[in-house]
Amino acid sequence: MPSDERDVLAANRSFYESFNGGDLPAIEALWADEGPVVCIHPGWDALHGREEVLESFRAILSGQSAPEVECVGPSAIVRGEMGVVVCGEMVDGAYLAATNVFVKVGAAWRMVHHQAGPVARRREGRRAEGAKTVKKEMLN
Amino acid sequence: MPSDERDVLAANRSFYESFNGGDLPAIEALWADEGPVVCIHPGWDALHGREEVLESFRAILSGQSAPEVECVGPSAIVRGEMGVVVCGEMVDGAYLAATNVFVKVGAAWRMVHHQAGPVARRREGRRAEGAKTVKKEMLN
Repeated sequence: MPSDERDVLAANRSFYESFNGGDLPAIEALWADEGPVVCIHPGWDALHGREEVLESFRAILSGQSAPEVECVGPSAIVRGEMGVVVCGEMVDGAYLAATNVFVKVGAAWRMVHHQAGPVARRREGRRAEGAKTVKKEMLN
Repeated sequence: MPSDERDVLAANRSFYESFNGGDLPAIEALWADEGPVVCIHPGWDALHGREEVLESFRAILSGQSAPEVECVGPSAIVRGEMGVVVCGEMVDGAYLAATNVFVKVGAAWRMVHHQAGPVARRREGRRAEGAKTVKKEMLN
């Protein structure tokens, strides 16, 4: 695996570890502090800008029951100084699909975008399934 | 606006125009034909690889009632040869939030990722709202 992919996946791991640890300073350090950032929590409209995005994490983590989020099967696409990670999220027994985008700032990969949304039916062994199965499922 | 941002937003527009026109060849030309691609339709688990992704669009567009999707308020973050567009989608009266990722291949921006998911409550005039409103909403 190219080192940039490894580094982007490591930044993605940091995001979930910081969240699960309730480590707001780490989340603040991870999100880019220059340029636009966007965050789409499950069921939520997009939050734009560092202040709104971090305020949402502050609100979630200061709640009585901040959820534990397990990152499942992350894969990365990296081009130069930007990378996107697609993964699943297990949250309170529910399965979500997520997109996380990072940009390289100096030697660090900083987060600029997160979207997570509910998945009605999780696919198992997706890589073994053929396109015909997909079509059949899409039409049902 | 930098020309790369303009070009990425134009590619994003092409995606929705092709979809609404039922133009499968245009969709096939837009999605990257090298490297990994991923697509998360609303409520769906991630589809991986060009074959699965295009098969899903074939299935959707060949259905009796392919939905019309209006792209709302797109904004782009571009770094070198990768760009991400965040936008809303109006689909049959429902509002979704979407993330679309593009990479530059030669002179063209090709799609490598799409995620769309339902939004329970659309925010109006989001840029005028302060972080306190966000926190209040998050806690409700």
